[in-house]
Amino acid sequence: MEIETFVAKSQGEWVSMRSGHSLAFKQFEEVISTIKIKQIPKEDSKVIDFLKKNGYSERETPSPFEIFWEGESNWDGNDDTLSGSSLLIPIPNSNNEGIILRSAGYAEKGSAISKYKFLSDHTFVLSTEYEQIIAEERIWFINSNTRCRSSVLFSKESKGILQTSFASEIRIINE
Amino acid sequence: MEIETFVAKSQGEWVSMRSGHSLAFKQFEEVISTIKIKQIPKEDSKVIDFLKKNGYSERETPSPFEIFWEGESNWDGNDDTLSGSSLLIPIPNSNNEGIILRSAGYAEKGSAISKYKFLSDHTFVLSTEYEQIIAEERIWFINSNTRCRSSVLFSKESKGILQTSFASEIRIINE
Repeated sequence: MEIETFVAKSQGEWVSMRSGHSLAFKQFEEVISTIKIKQIPKEDSKVIDFLKKNGYSERETPSPFEIFWEGESNWDGNDDTLSGSSLLIPIPNSNNEGIILRSAGYAEKGSAISKYKFLSDHTFVLSTEYEQIIAEERIWFINSNTRCRSSVLFSKESKGILQTSFASEIRIINE
Repeated sequence: MEIETFVAKSQGEWVSMRSGHSLAFKQFEEVISTIKIKQIPKEDSKVIDFLKKNGYSERETPSPFEIFWEGESNWDGNDDTLSGSSLLIPIPNSNNEGIILRSAGYAEKGSAISKYKFLSDHTFVLSTEYEQIIAEERIWFINSNTRCRSSVLFSKESKGILQTSFASEIRIINE
């Protein structure tokens, strides 16, 4: 399963430089944050409970993991809390495609279900439908300790692009 | 040929928001620029001369084009000229792979030869070896008038990452 390799390669603590582009206003946002990615056993009660809530069993997930983040934005007037955590549970339906159950979303609060697939060069592509927004993310490794991550947020109603972003992530602790 | 579709889709005038990340210094650069992409006939004398210089004939290129750019950076002390133009001549060796001859490079001045390929979702991936730097770029459309472009610059000697960048490009004139 490609997702197992991807999660294993992503473990550890990362420093992220992230740029957000608001296309309509030509505004740039800059965020420096720390991201921790940690695999957890599929027998963990958090995993079993969340799977059960969504109608799955722990036999169906190869590599559940948690993400913790904490960051600072330069965006004036931005009072969003930039720290949080999320439980992510991949449910593959083939070697390179499937879904991910998330306890907390990225673009909107609350739980979400993402679709994922891997491109021919192993780029990880993730699509998440929230209440008002569709988020499309892609993550690719440029060496074993550096990842790039891009995202596009679309308005579900107008299909317009609300924001694009790009993060350069460097692993500082390999664990 | 995928490259013909890609060049045809890219024609016109684009406004680009570009963020550069210097990973070692955690520095952000912001650049707003205008990019013009224009197909030119393969019988144009500029094309024929440049092909001849590189040992090719105009029969081998499906869609030569020119890029013109002009921009402003916020980077203190940056006195690089941010305008220029380049002639690009694709020479495919299969439906989704080949090389591109460039009259002016992106990371270093002077002419260069890039290798290109298309991923399974039509993302265009370009790799260019300069004298001291290797540049890896990827370009993908998120709708018909919006492209994303990422780049990574590696030091040829140390293999270290010198800079990553990301551009959101919106077409303002479709021509």
